[in-house]
Amino acid sequence: MVSETPAAGSVCIVGAGPGPADLMTLRALNRLKQAQVVVHDRLIAEDVLALIPAAARRVYVGKALGHHAVPQEEIHDLLVGHARQGLRVVRLKGGDPYVFGRGGEEVLALQAAGIAFEVVPGVTAASGCSAAAGIPLTHRHLAASCVFLPGHLADDQASHDWQALAGAGQTRVFYMGVQRLAQIAQALIAHGLPPDTPAAIVQDGARPTQSVLAHPLRRLVEIAPPYGPRPGLLIIGETVRLSPSFEE
Amino acid sequence: MVSETPAAGSVCIVGAGPGPADLMTLRALNRLKQAQVVVHDRLIAEDVLALIPAAARRVYVGKALGHHAVPQEEIHDLLVGHARQGLRVVRLKGGDPYVFGRGGEEVLALQAAGIAFEVVPGVTAASGCSAAAGIPLTHRHLAASCVFLPGHLADDQASHDWQALAGAGQTRVFYMGVQRLAQIAQALIAHGLPPDTPAAIVQDGARPTQSVLAHPLRRLVEIAPPYGPRPGLLIIGETVRLSPSFEE
Repeated sequence: MVSETPAAGSVCIVGAGPGPADLMTLRALNRLKQAQVVVHDRLIAEDVLALIPAAARRVYVGKALGHHAVPQEEIHDLLVGHARQGLRVVRLKGGDPYVFGRGGEEVLALQAAGIAFEVVPGVTAASGCSAAAGIPLTHRHLAASCVFLPGHLADDQASHDWQALAGAGQTRVFYMGVQRLAQIAQALIAHGLPPDTPAAIVQDGARPTQSVLAHPLRRLVEIAPPYGPRPGLLIIGETVRLSPSFEE
Repeated sequence: MVSETPAAGSVCIVGAGPGPADLMTLRALNRLKQAQVVVHDRLIAEDVLALIPAAARRVYVGKALGHHAVPQEEIHDLLVGHARQGLRVVRLKGGDPYVFGRGGEEVLALQAAGIAFEVVPGVTAASGCSAAAGIPLTHRHLAASCVFLPGHLADDQASHDWQALAGAGQTRVFYMGVQRLAQIAQALIAHGLPPDTPAAIVQDGARPTQSVLAHPLRRLVEIAPPYGPRPGLLIIGETVRLSPSFEE
């Protein structure tokens, strides 16, 4: 007797890491190779996308600059809908799913719908960029801690604690913070950060097209070019001085 | 004519990720397979060590509990010395080399000695544990930012900014913070953190032996067993409530 219940599908939320396919984990690669549907964002590198099985359905949910992304609720519906068809779904995200990846929201939606899921961690952009740009996130005598922040805050979120962020002994990493460089610098300096604190803009971090601009913060604000759609991290702290790209 | 100068050696500082070999990156695996010498720490998982080529020399520089580790300067000398013999050296570290990995210090020593080097980022323990324990590090409405701190501070480091760490809207991750749970909780609560803030101890995170204990912070302090040598992360913040392990 053949059961009429379709085989249960599942969703694997996979962190693809900072870009190049060889900075994916082996587990991420294995899940991707088994995928029947891949729902992916804009910032996934071409050589990662090339690993998606030819037979798998691809669903693009990213946004181009100036265009709206697929609303988060629609992404949830896509994941649940494909899983309910009995398919192995991979939700492919840049970096790590639980660091500015909205992985937590997608997990809640999957739990609510009773869909089996797994989260595969990835190398977050801060680690990928710090390795590629020669900027330790922590370092004895220079930075005891590191903090990851969004360049933009959601409408309902309180402002950052600028007083705390201006304090010494930490590395501050603003994800997608490049377009907000001037405002971030102004707020930190107003709260006591020395204006000559080393700071870096890392764009396309860990990719062949990577660029690093590293200077004292005040100078970085003066010379930073206008930034377009390339993803960029803003790193502020004494460890930036260790980067070979740093110039006074 | 045969040159008498030995071929130049090199050092690759490799982040092995949080434990299981399949949470290494492909690049890390490739570097490890090419190694002629592997200098490794205590927290590297057995299945990762099993990937070291049989012909490679293994140098263990970790410490067992209650025993001194190899001093950092001796590790520098080991890396430089082997590279000067013309060998491909891999310096294998748990997690990510630039997050509490002292990778920055080793890079400075290699630069000073004129040794070619590379840093391969890895999945840091916070990402590995958050994926395995179901605790997002950031999450809309709950945590706009996350901060990574050491459980212990170096002697010359100022105390943490407890006032800032007690503030809402952030996930606090204390690396190797389990043994200092009581002091950390006391300091945070004294600075205004609500005592019922969700908090988790994740030990052997992302490994088959993983254990997660997640409760309101005040209760966690009451019931936490004495902790031995297993590596453990302490995570404090509202997102801990999303973990399936969380109990009021």
